[in-house]
Amino acid sequence: MRIAQIAPLTEAVPPKLYGGTERVIHWLTEELVGLGHDVTLFASGDSRTSAKLEAGWPRALRLDGAVRDANALHLAMLENVRGRAHEFDFLHFHLDYYPFSLFSRQSTPFLTTLHGRLDLPELHPVFNACTAAPVVSISNSQRRPLPQARWVRTIYHGLPENLITPKPVRPSYLAFLGRIAPEKAVDRAIHVARKCGIPLKIAAKVDRVDAEYYEQRIRPLIEPPHVEYIGEIGDHEKSEFLSGAHALMATIDWPEPFGLVMIEAMASGTPVIAFNRGSVPEVVDDGITGFIVEDELGAIGAVQRISELDRAAVRKQFERRFTARRMAQDYLGVYRALAESHAPRLRIVGADEAPALAASDAS
Amino acid sequence: MRIAQIAPLTEAVPPKLYGGTERVIHWLTEELVGLGHDVTLFASGDSRTSAKLEAGWPRALRLDGAVRDANALHLAMLENVRGRAHEFDFLHFHLDYYPFSLFSRQSTPFLTTLHGRLDLPELHPVFNACTAAPVVSISNSQRRPLPQARWVRTIYHGLPENLITPKPVRPSYLAFLGRIAPEKAVDRAIHVARKCGIPLKIAAKVDRVDAEYYEQRIRPLIEPPHVEYIGEIGDHEKSEFLSGAHALMATIDWPEPFGLVMIEAMASGTPVIAFNRGSVPEVVDDGITGFIVEDELGAIGAVQRISELDRAAVRKQFERRFTARRMAQDYLGVYRALAESHAPRLRIVGADEAPALAASDAS
Repeated sequence: MRIAQIAPLTEAVPPKLYGGTERVIHWLTEELVGLGHDVTLFASGDSRTSAKLEAGWPRALRLDGAVRDANALHLAMLENVRGRAHEFDFLHFHLDYYPFSLFSRQSTPFLTTLHGRLDLPELHPVFNACTAAPVVSISNSQRRPLPQARWVRTIYHGLPENLITPKPVRPSYLAFLGRIAPEKAVDRAIHVARKCGIPLKIAAKVDRVDAEYYEQRIRPLIEPPHVEYIGEIGDHEKSEFLSGAHALMATIDWPEPFGLVMIEAMASGTPVIAFNRGSVPEVVDDGITGFIVEDELGAIGAVQRISELDRAAVRKQFERRFTARRMAQDYLGVYRALAESHAPRLRIVGADEAPALAASDAS
Repeated sequence: MRIAQIAPLTEAVPPKLYGGTERVIHWLTEELVGLGHDVTLFASGDSRTSAKLEAGWPRALRLDGAVRDANALHLAMLENVRGRAHEFDFLHFHLDYYPFSLFSRQSTPFLTTLHGRLDLPELHPVFNACTAAPVVSISNSQRRPLPQARWVRTIYHGLPENLITPKPVRPSYLAFLGRIAPEKAVDRAIHVARKCGIPLKIAAKVDRVDAEYYEQRIRPLIEPPHVEYIGEIGDHEKSEFLSGAHALMATIDWPEPFGLVMIEAMASGTPVIAFNRGSVPEVVDDGITGFIVEDELGAIGAVQRISELDRAAVRKQFERRFTARRMAQDYLGVYRALAESHAPRLRIVGADEAPALAASDAS
């Protein structure tokens, strides 16, 4: 298929720094190319890809301090995609609701993956108005605030199969990975590790907006060697870091639509102890890849049972459920289903005032 | 005509606080209704209008701290206007480049008035991509950074004829009106007034972003009675304030696309001493409604010549050039010209892949 992937210009694909959405777009794009498809990636010009790159702006906007109006660039990119839509068999957007109005009224089938949380009240008007635009959720729980959207399927994120792998090290600590921010609640992981008498290693970044939170609430809790903060780590360091952990502590305090860090742990064979919020019960197979807990007391109990889990089985479940290849194949299934349901309609419907496509479920 | 005015949701129409764009939309809408047209105003729900109000959100967003994603509401409003476009003879947008892609591909004629400065480099991609969308400038100087846009006319803003009128008071000071901010350079007005030995009265707001600038750079210069800061004033106070001034000091230090405050002064018969930036030479008739100067020295000379100007002639020139009625009639001329050039084309052009409208100049 001739497929266009349309990414935000905020970060490069893959991102130079943190950026879950752009990492997922990168992995999906590489897999689609690997599967033999003709892929064009609309993204910032500093992206690296095996697909054809169409630069919407020379640099990722988060690193380009000169750009004040990011919307102008995203709407220009949408206009350019619209002008070239006939060159593609399928358009896959990662730009929230931005493409809905424009692309519901043209003939190339399209899809939007919604990457963020959807519980803002101001999202209702645009989803009420654009019920024809097909959308994919990254977990079922993500959908709840917006039942009126045209959900066609949930597709869980996936990692390249060999990006993170089990290493032959003896687990000796609990791990926290990602960002230090109130919604990630690393303080809970610290409490649990202390109560269990097991060291906690924290590999995480601190965003500027969270610097005060870190200084006031978290830093006083860091006491090496029991609680150690090792800073941010890259993908190439994660296999080692995660393999050395008895468990990853996903002590989240928000309805996370999908937690990449959980499948990163699984890829290394490390079980996950996760609070029951957002996508957690969909991503963690309780008793196989980890334990789902309700509070710190539950987490302490889970740590004590962690040796019941088989790390080889954790890795195996990762390979079954959360590879980028599986993700790409799921998306191809949706592309094909939407293309089939889409194509015949536009031969019979006039164009300028064409009604929006009827909602249909491709899942 | 059945006319839709589509306003930003940022402020109410008219705004409860400062907000030049929304004030102009209000005056235009009222005049169009007064001229017998069937006008629908898409705006925030706390707007007050003689037109039919279609609320895009219950409250103006600047006063609604709960809304984090204003784009979602603006794009929802555009989708709603698009769905109802056939109900109107003309669509007039005040939303920058937002409507370009969507409305260039439908049959109701439309127009965008660009209200802001246009010299951001990130605007080029969207104006390069959307050369079919007709736009009105609020001064010729505003156009310079974007020659590729489809400029159909410059239409200067106008005020309701009797909003501000000359009052029988003896002028005794120089006036500064508007906002205290670096680009408004009130410090220059203070220097000029001091050198001339004439008191300066400053009626202006200080935005939160400019609080530090005010405290550090301007407040030390305020020394009553020679330099007096009287705070922000409303429209009902402006006739008195401006009539009492020998001249309005428009000491701007930025390419202001249109300075409403200059025509407010003219409405009261007060001449304007304005620095030669942005729209100034188009708005001020040098030697009739004021003097255009290059620097503080020139401004001092202009103050000394101010009695040469006839205040009745200033008011007369306001009535000739800058009333809201004239503005509305100019817009109606553009609406009609675009509607005529627009209508026949769409009978012969296919729709889904319709080419963008050829650029034509309706001015």
